Amino acid sequence: MAEIRNVLFIMVDQMRADCLSIDGHPVVQTPNLDRLAKRGVRFSRAYVQTAVCGPSRACFYTGRYTHAHGTYWNEIPLAIDEQTLGQVVRNAGVRAALCGKTHMTADEATLERLQVVEPVRERLRHAGFEPWEVNDFWGEGWMQHLHSRGYDLPFENPMLAAFQVTAPDGARRNGWRFENCRLPTVYDQADSDTAFMTDRAMAFIDDAGDAPWLLHLSYLKPHWPNVAPVPYNTLYDPADVPAPNRAEHERTNPHPILQPFREERRGLALDDEQTWRNMRATYYGLITEIDTHIGRLMAHLEARGRLDDTLIIFVSDHGEYMGDHWLFEKELFYEEAIRVPLIIVDPDPRADGTRGSVQDVWVESIDLMPTCLEALNISIPPAVQGRSLLGIVRGAQPDSWRDAVFGDWDFRFYRTSAILRLPVNRCRAWMIRDEAYKYVHFNGLPDMLFDLRQDPSELCNLAEDPSRKEVIAAYRERLLAWRQATEDDRLGKWLEAQMGRAGVYWVPDDIF
Amino acid sequence: MAEIRNVLFIMVDQMRADCLSIDGHPVVQTPNLDRLAKRGVRFSRAYVQTAVCGPSRACFYTGRYTHAHGTYWNEIPLAIDEQTLGQVVRNAGVRAALCGKTHMTADEATLERLQVVEPVRERLRHAGFEPWEVNDFWGEGWMQHLHSRGYDLPFENPMLAAFQVTAPDGARRNGWRFENCRLPTVYDQADSDTAFMTDRAMAFIDDAGDAPWLLHLSYLKPHWPNVAPVPYNTLYDPADVPAPNRAEHERTNPHPILQPFREERRGLALDDEQTWRNMRATYYGLITEIDTHIGRLMAHLEARGRLDDTLIIFVSDHGEYMGDHWLFEKELFYEEAIRVPLIIVDPDPRADGTRGSVQDVWVESIDLMPTCLEALNISIPPAVQGRSLLGIVRGAQPDSWRDAVFGDWDFRFYRTSAILRLPVNRCRAWMIRDEAYKYVHFNGLPDMLFDLRQDPSELCNLAEDPSRKEVIAAYRERLLAWRQATEDDRLGKWLEAQMGRAGVYWVPDDIF
Repeated sequence: MAEIRNVLFIMVDQMRADCLSIDGHPVVQTPNLDRLAKRGVRFSRAYVQTAVCGPSRACFYTGRYTHAHGTYWNEIPLAIDEQTLGQVVRNAGVRAALCGKTHMTADEATLERLQVVEPVRERLRHAGFEPWEVNDFWGEGWMQHLHSRGYDLPFENPMLAAFQVTAPDGARRNGWRFENCRLPTVYDQADSDTAFMTDRAMAFIDDAGDAPWLLHLSYLKPHWPNVAPVPYNTLYDPADVPAPNRAEHERTNPHPILQPFREERRGLALDDEQTWRNMRATYYGLITEIDTHIGRLMAHLEARGRLDDTLIIFVSDHGEYMGDHWLFEKELFYEEAIRVPLIIVDPDPRADGTRGSVQDVWVESIDLMPTCLEALNISIPPAVQGRSLLGIVRGAQPDSWRDAVFGDWDFRFYRTSAILRLPVNRCRAWMIRDEAYKYVHFNGLPDMLFDLRQDPSELCNLAEDPSRKEVIAAYRERLLAWRQATEDDRLGKWLEAQMGRAGVYWVPDDIF
Repeated sequence: MAEIRNVLFIMVDQMRADCLSIDGHPVVQTPNLDRLAKRGVRFSRAYVQTAVCGPSRACFYTGRYTHAHGTYWNEIPLAIDEQTLGQVVRNAGVRAALCGKTHMTADEATLERLQVVEPVRERLRHAGFEPWEVNDFWGEGWMQHLHSRGYDLPFENPMLAAFQVTAPDGARRNGWRFENCRLPTVYDQADSDTAFMTDRAMAFIDDAGDAPWLLHLSYLKPHWPNVAPVPYNTLYDPADVPAPNRAEHERTNPHPILQPFREERRGLALDDEQTWRNMRATYYGLITEIDTHIGRLMAHLEARGRLDDTLIIFVSDHGEYMGDHWLFEKELFYEEAIRVPLIIVDPDPRADGTRGSVQDVWVESIDLMPTCLEALNISIPPAVQGRSLLGIVRGAQPDSWRDAVFGDWDFRFYRTSAILRLPVNRCRAWMIRDEAYKYVHFNGLPDMLFDLRQDPSELCNLAEDPSRKEVIAAYRERLLAWRQATEDDRLGKWLEAQMGRAGVYWVPDDIF
């Protein structure tokens, strides 16, 4: 086997951790992902720092916590001094291309103010990746492809065009609406976004030839709208899907944020059994569609001899409730939203001992960026807060690994914040999750505490239980310690790297 | 009286809040500052966010907390997307000049990476001010001035040249050494840094003419080295100075950080009575020297007719222990270090009702930047976390003003951190101070708690007292809330300003 020269960093959008057939899911079939898992390592405790696309991706791409990079919600531009995976790899002279979605924007206002010139600006967009094929839900390339294939779609409104479906009578329907989720897309499976992005990824691999590369293949699916092409739209029978993980008391006596939030984010619709059955079945279909194309991609890599020198990562940017806890989509901190599937396949012989294993170390999304860099032998910027997983993949026992994962969520941009009469600066929640508990600290709302040994499904919030007072105090202290340890220290870490730890005070001893 | 057109923002370095004769200090005389206080408002509870020059100034200049702007220690460059007072005023078309020190550096590494061109870069240095006369301890201008005046000083080493003193036998001595603090500087009082910077400030005022301006006059003194020209070096008798605020048990049974920190930062020297007497007396002399030149400056403003249209601010970047709590200089969170003198003189008739008053609202250093901007009628950037004091100066009762002040200190760059065997990311402390208590939360060291009603001198740390457990729990929760409310949200606040609060989720309702 050759040394690792390339990294294929595959991200899917909104795929739950439990949706792998190798993990025992009762319905969804993922034979190709299962095969990857057998060739590599599956991490059973991989968590994102926040269950919203933009900020979660910013964590993946910078290797830094949400509060450190400051992109704590969608559409908040990434600070221009943040160093992203794409930038760092490209600055090291290795091609780092994007095929799909990043949900990232650059801080154009500051770039304008600092008169940064266009070729430099371009490198700050798309999280620093070379924009090989951008598809942030309705990329131009995919739209042109659909157009060139002759589909009659409302291209003037890509938001509709991408998700139109066909009723049995041939009429077009809006795929955003839940009641249409079983109808097939207008385009065939060979022209879906998943198919198209896979084609483009294979084209990139061919284009790159023998020079090293990192490819970020970032699929849009299985993110809502839940519409799939034939045959995936009806691959699974709604009658077979597992029932939501939810208890009646979560709805009748909820934490104050749950009712307004689920109302605002369309959770009420999934109270209805037929709706969650249909939505889940299509969701699983979309996952199997991705799986199929990953099989195609692996065959392509193999045909090009690239399986032997390419590190493969498969991960999701966050999960999906699909009716669990009476919620839809993501956000908050339940396991369904923050735990993600993560598979790493390392062709290096040093990883032979872990192939097919499941590792239960606590992984955070900030670990992926340093993992990619280590695999490519590129030095990790000092401000990175995550740790490379490569050693674990290669069988090393890391010393002093973390014993908990942390989360951060801001809901100021939701109507929920106004309904709860919270000032904008109190719309933030922090989470710690370890072996024993999950604790969520709000700022002006009651806390959440789940005893995960007694209640792994997180149905009973114990935050108001007086007997847990000491537990809560201990977790609050850990949250304080976490923040104190992970300030936004981009430039502080830079200074530390420059000057070492001690004795840099401006008055040298020898002045005396 | 005319409208305010100008702001004279005077900062001194390391002056304690209690060193004003109008405040009843038993020794130091400050007739000109007292006069300012009578013409304006004195704030008795003005606090800096951190008692170290660089980070404290970054708070003053950005209007944002230490953890928000990220410059948490000296020499850590300010992030290039931070908007400073100097930049914002200049961007509004008003001259904003620096005369003195800022202790700020720009993030040149990122500027290089982004290929920002020189005229733009220049505006990020010196906290965005026009560098009228820079003197970050040994500015070129002042050195040239001393040279041109014929002083024989070791100009090749400005760090020594600036602080040489003359022994009675005519020999030169090193003013950095405490035992030389009573000896006069080589240069006369008319050529001291304080005199020179005042001259240059007056020259700026003349240069600016009738166009509006903001001048940041930022004196180096009374920062150590404690050396003063004749007559200020012996103006006060060491026999008269007040004894340090300290208790024997603070030294014999100290909080773990105190002993290594006071050893590292030369606090042991001030255990000796003659040393603290001499050092204090010279320190007071330096304050009176500044006071004298402020009198000169006021006369100049008056002669130019500028007293009527200029808002004057007098403040210090932090305090000085001078042996209090067995410490020297600053840092940590005792009142001597974090409370600062603050006087604001507003010539507007709306401020007539408050002239000569002492206001006890809780002021933080982040309030000064918005105060300057409001006075100049320039809009305050959304990321600013402080609040303008102008309304209070004009007699308004602000609604929902803060009821506590907060602090942040990082000691990773000290040998103390290694002596305490703390990993670098545990070298951070946060403080909250309100009417009742001061609470300092460390990360891996015991806390500090002072009951300020019982113990206003902060001599008895009650953090280990079991009866205060509930108090500590409450303050920890407030620290959590503070951080949750003041994340680094430069770009989040920008988005909020752009889009308003609610309903910006990317899927519009009408897509359904």
